[in-house]
Amino acid sequence: MDRNNHVDYVIRYSFADTDTQKAIDQLERLLRRLHEVGLQSEVREADESSLFVFVRASNTKSLRHAVYQSRIRDWLHGVRNTEPEQESEAEPQTEAERLRVIYHMITVPREAGGAGIIPEYGEWKNVTAVFPLHDDETNKECMRDWSSKTFLTPEDLDKIRNSFGESVGFYFAFLQSYFRFLMFPAAFGFSCWILLGSFSTIYTVVNALWCIVFIEYWKRQEEDLSCRWQTRGVSLNRPKRLDFKPEREVRDARTGEIKGVFPIGKRMQRQLLQVPFTVVAAIGLGVIIATCFAIEIFISEIYNGPFKGYLVFIPTILLSALIPTMTAVLVSVATRLNDYENYETQFAYDAALTQKIFIINFITSYLPIVLTAFVYLPFASYIVPYLDVFQLTVRPFVSKEHATTARTKFSINPDRLRKQVIYFTVTAQAVNFAQETIVPILKQRFAQKYKEYQRNRNKPVDDDSTESETQRKSRDIPFQDDPNETKFLNRVRNEADLADYDVTDDLREMCIQFGYLALFAPIWPLVPVSFLVNNWVELRSDFFKICIECKRPWPQRAETIGPWLESLGFLSWVGSITSSALVYMFSNNDTAPDGQPSTIKGWALLLTIFFSEHLYLFVRYAVRAGMSKLEPPNVRKERTERYMMRRRYLESTLLTRSASDDDESEAEQPPADADSGVDLSQITRKTLEEDAREWTRHGTDPAEKFWQRQKGWRESAHVASAIVRELTSHSAKESKESKKEL
Amino acid sequence: MDRNNHVDYVIRYSFADTDTQKAIDQLERLLRRLHEVGLQSEVREADESSLFVFVRASNTKSLRHAVYQSRIRDWLHGVRNTEPEQESEAEPQTEAERLRVIYHMITVPREAGGAGIIPEYGEWKNVTAVFPLHDDETNKECMRDWSSKTFLTPEDLDKIRNSFGESVGFYFAFLQSYFRFLMFPAAFGFSCWILLGSFSTIYTVVNALWCIVFIEYWKRQEEDLSCRWQTRGVSLNRPKRLDFKPEREVRDARTGEIKGVFPIGKRMQRQLLQVPFTVVAAIGLGVIIATCFAIEIFISEIYNGPFKGYLVFIPTILLSALIPTMTAVLVSVATRLNDYENYETQFAYDAALTQKIFIINFITSYLPIVLTAFVYLPFASYIVPYLDVFQLTVRPFVSKEHATTARTKFSINPDRLRKQVIYFTVTAQAVNFAQETIVPILKQRFAQKYKEYQRNRNKPVDDDSTESETQRKSRDIPFQDDPNETKFLNRVRNEADLADYDVTDDLREMCIQFGYLALFAPIWPLVPVSFLVNNWVELRSDFFKICIECKRPWPQRAETIGPWLESLGFLSWVGSITSSALVYMFSNNDTAPDGQPSTIKGWALLLTIFFSEHLYLFVRYAVRAGMSKLEPPNVRKERTERYMMRRRYLESTLLTRSASDDDESEAEQPPADADSGVDLSQITRKTLEEDAREWTRHGTDPAEKFWQRQKGWRESAHVASAIVRELTSHSAKESKESKKEL
Repeated sequence: MDRNNHVDYVIRYSFADTDTQKAIDQLERLLRRLHEVGLQSEVREADESSLFVFVRASNTKSLRHAVYQSRIRDWLHGVRNTEPEQESEAEPQTEAERLRVIYHMITVPREAGGAGIIPEYGEWKNVTAVFPLHDDETNKECMRDWSSKTFLTPEDLDKIRNSFGESVGFYFAFLQSYFRFLMFPAAFGFSCWILLGSFSTIYTVVNALWCIVFIEYWKRQEEDLSCRWQTRGVSLNRPKRLDFKPEREVRDARTGEIKGVFPIGKRMQRQLLQVPFTVVAAIGLGVIIATCFAIEIFISEIYNGPFKGYLVFIPTILLSALIPTMTAVLVSVATRLNDYENYETQFAYDAALTQKIFIINFITSYLPIVLTAFVYLPFASYIVPYLDVFQLTVRPFVSKEHATTARTKFSINPDRLRKQVIYFTVTAQAVNFAQETIVPILKQRFAQKYKEYQRNRNKPVDDDSTESETQRKSRDIPFQDDPNETKFLNRVRNEADLADYDVTDDLREMCIQFGYLALFAPIWPLVPVSFLVNNWVELRSDFFKICIECKRPWPQRAETIGPWLESLGFLSWVGSITSSALVYMFSNNDTAPDGQPSTIKGWALLLTIFFSEHLYLFVRYAVRAGMSKLEPPNVRKERTERYMMRRRYLESTLLTRSASDDDESEAEQPPADADSGVDLSQITRKTLEEDAREWTRHGTDPAEKFWQRQKGWRESAHVASAIVRELTSHSAKESKESKKEL
Repeated sequence: MDRNNHVDYVIRYSFADTDTQKAIDQLERLLRRLHEVGLQSEVREADESSLFVFVRASNTKSLRHAVYQSRIRDWLHGVRNTEPEQESEAEPQTEAERLRVIYHMITVPREAGGAGIIPEYGEWKNVTAVFPLHDDETNKECMRDWSSKTFLTPEDLDKIRNSFGESVGFYFAFLQSYFRFLMFPAAFGFSCWILLGSFSTIYTVVNALWCIVFIEYWKRQEEDLSCRWQTRGVSLNRPKRLDFKPEREVRDARTGEIKGVFPIGKRMQRQLLQVPFTVVAAIGLGVIIATCFAIEIFISEIYNGPFKGYLVFIPTILLSALIPTMTAVLVSVATRLNDYENYETQFAYDAALTQKIFIINFITSYLPIVLTAFVYLPFASYIVPYLDVFQLTVRPFVSKEHATTARTKFSINPDRLRKQVIYFTVTAQAVNFAQETIVPILKQRFAQKYKEYQRNRNKPVDDDSTESETQRKSRDIPFQDDPNETKFLNRVRNEADLADYDVTDDLREMCIQFGYLALFAPIWPLVPVSFLVNNWVELRSDFFKICIECKRPWPQRAETIGPWLESLGFLSWVGSITSSALVYMFSNNDTAPDGQPSTIKGWALLLTIFFSEHLYLFVRYAVRAGMSKLEPPNVRKERTERYMMRRRYLESTLLTRSASDDDESEAEQPPADADSGVDLSQITRKTLEEDAREWTRHGTDPAEKFWQRQKGWRESAHVASAIVRELTSHSAKESKESKKEL
């Protein structure tokens, strides 16, 4: 039995703040539209102010038509290589394809043949969600299966793709590749940690090389997967973004279509606003982080007054309060900027937003360590005296002598850097895991409890005897379910309340994690070990998150992990700069008595960076050139298929050609072969000359005459042999003569 | 009248060192092969030991078939968007297409439907050339026309492409774009030269920006041209290289083809040899250049002994003797290396060779200036004392005191850098022009004279009276031409003796020139002015060279200028390093009394380079991102065409669909509409529940039951409105009640 009752999609319609009649009219329109595109619907209650419309593509004919159309479109855009089968045979091959096609049937505008119901947009503001139902059994089976496995097989990834679409599939494939690739630096890092300690040059070089190889490998892998999943080229054919505001309408002279246009120059001008945005973000976050950092140093290493035990927590509290606030502000500014940039496709919009948010993430994630490594450790002895400013704040509470005596004893704490890296790569990862997986469950539980509590509180003042009765009724009126359906409907209600899943967040997390490895791994070679462990859990917990804590996403197609690939490359490049600088600054270990690394020379540091960066770029170029020649198996398969298709086609045209050849050759060949009947021995150059002269008299085109000297190839061959004989004998005679002379 | 007598190709067959009978047999085979593929041929004498086979595609049917086949192939490989017209209508659109197709008919292996006659390869060692004849009138017309024009129009470029093919067309298009783009830096450089002098920061920044914009612009332009000339994607479909030596044969399991395979890993290992090659080349050339440089400095600025006036020429003589020798040796090593790398396609082979030769060119062209700027000027005072070694050589001829007194007066000559740049960008360009254009003409004249002289000398010892007679005869025997053809055949003989044209050399020259601009322009801001003048001449003289001094090349297709684009990008990148370093080192002008720039600090220099380079890379990224959004007109046109094709196709499928829809809709619609006949007011939730219970008894699939509660969308709508009414009234009652309570 199908636990989902054959439901393909659930549309949640909320009429909380809408006029009753308007809501009824709109619901009727919604149901009619669904019917018109060939979808079956059933209505049930959802909660006090919303209802579910269950949608099912029972009319296999219209589904088949939609599948066929989508395949034709793919074929025309070059996503598929072969012209699709007949419409009557167009069955969705995977659940993801089925769900994607039905989602398009529901949401695509009516002009394009869909029902035009776009959640929370335009006239459909009341449609709060359109989502498929989780396939609990498959999900549970996967979770059980994977918890005992080290690596996912390609078939496991196919499973994810089949139920959640290629976009999610790509995330898991990336996570899996990344995890597999981490084995090597984890093992190598562990050995280096034991044998060489921190800041080892060998480890740094190997690590940078690993980053390059991993990124290039993943590019190949992406290509391979996009062939395996038949999504190659989908990103070229993205639908228009709904919020795109064209500046003017332009009628294409050739296609006759009227198209909204927004001038690229104008968008580029608007994009220039990213520069001040980046500066403001860097300064805003930088100031917060640097200040908290300074306070922390002041309190933990200079200040010696009372309450030190409590005061050390001040910077942490400040940071955890200010950074998320500032980030939220910046993200909202970034979103506004992005809206203002007015992208034409949702894809371009998302990519641009991702890029902006990446800048914020970059600063919040890496700036603390950069400050410690490149400001605190080398320059602390110059900066610390200026921390006197904090002393002014402290003075009211503590006598001046108390603090000053402490200052003379100040020395740089070289272990701070390592501790910080461990914090970010171990502690923070664990905290993040908890926040992502455990907190939402608790939150959800709490929300349910609170809802129940609210409902109970609404009816507390009736007389005591009927309370339980009314209470029961108050819950029952909204949910007059058929007893057979209660269980199912409750499950749907639960799923409808879950959060939306966004694969971008998970990708960002991985990207930031990769950054720690690329930028700071030499500080603590165990970084990859920690990530290896973390990512084994991460893969499973992310799958758990999608299945249990989020609505099932509608299956989107993708051929890459999108703008993150570029971010990975950027991080690995920056890593070549930071890690070489770190190694130069801290590898010699002979710190001065006050903890300051003794002999950092500006020019030597810069020269190290210069060489390391250019070596990095050169190696990257070489690896890229090398890897680009390796053809992943599925790419080869696709190429072979395309080749076969071409060959079949060419052969068929050649066949028709040679058949027609045969027909006509009889009419054509004879004159050519006829001249073979002429007695060739009779042809001398003289007779030919005569022929030519004869033709001249007939007054044909003189250019044509040139071609009439030799009739057919046999005559030409004869003349050729005559010439060769004549000339060779002539030169032989000549050389004989010249010999004679001697 | 056609001055070329309708000759499409001339095949020169040389039988100098071949057995007469063998030559005759082979000639017969050659002529038969040509006949078999449908080409007409005529044989004439060429000179004492070779003859011409004139080839013409008079059989329009086989030419049409070849054109049709080439178009089908293009279409299958995505070069053309539309399926080609019928074979009977396949006419070559341009002369280049006609010549290209005929060349393929002659050279393509017999299995693939050609005659398999490949000049100087395999059994056809005696075929020394296969070339088309120049279209003198068109060429002369172009030369006349262009000599009075500043810019070539796109139509002019089309003309070049139509007669010499896309590969040559791309070179001229590049030269034209480069020339046009040079206007700006020339004007700006001239103003800077007057207002700011050398080493101006503004000029340097503008120059670097110009380089970025130019390269990105050219990329767009390339795309545009490849659409205009319909060659987009041709580089993906390159024929196998003939000299490719597969390691083993592999049978493809799917296509069933047997294919020669050479493992990529093995080739990559062989490619690693490029590293020692580069090192050796750099050291070899570097030592020569540095030594000559040191000798020059010693003689011109330290040495004060006798013969100074003559000795100053020693380094120049040494350089012009040693550098070409060394270069020739290195090029031959590079070619060997390239052969060893065993590329599969000619295209890959050429690209790899180009890259190797570019390294050599890079060193010989730029190292002298680099030495002056970054070694001589900053470090001369440290290095010059070591030049004593030369003193040892001089000592036998001159008293020690004489030289030593001079040394104390040594001071750096800061003007040397500027003079050197002027030499390379003005003098060398002019010399090069002379070498390329005037020298070959003289050489050719001389060769003709020499040939005549040789011929005369062969018969000098006959008796005086008959000398003139014999002489005439000795020239006449080999050339028994028809008097009507004499003029034409002499022209063909001349053309056959011309050199082969290779577009790579011209591209290399431009690329190296661009390098001077990118790397060293701040030294002398008039560099672009000189190049502007030079390139106006260059464009015309290169065209002259192709038309007059070279055999007409067979028209090759191309969609880019190939590996040179990468070289341009590389030079512009290196330019961001060198020019910022030059500006930092020499812009302050306060040189110490001994001519040494006073205050160069290592860290400041490196910091300048670091910032300048990263700024460059960032700007390049931004410009690239911006430019990639601009769509060149022909690309847009192509896209529109593709779109139209798709739309037509989609519309036709949709039409058939909607037609079949109409047929079946009558059978399908009724049940859906039938339920509208039911009196909806009669449907209450209760009756529905009852219906449901009834169905339950029938024991259908419980999942199906879920979908049978509401029959058709109208019932669903009815139920929906019932739910909305019920819930809203309920909540209204509730809120009323809660109000009552208050």
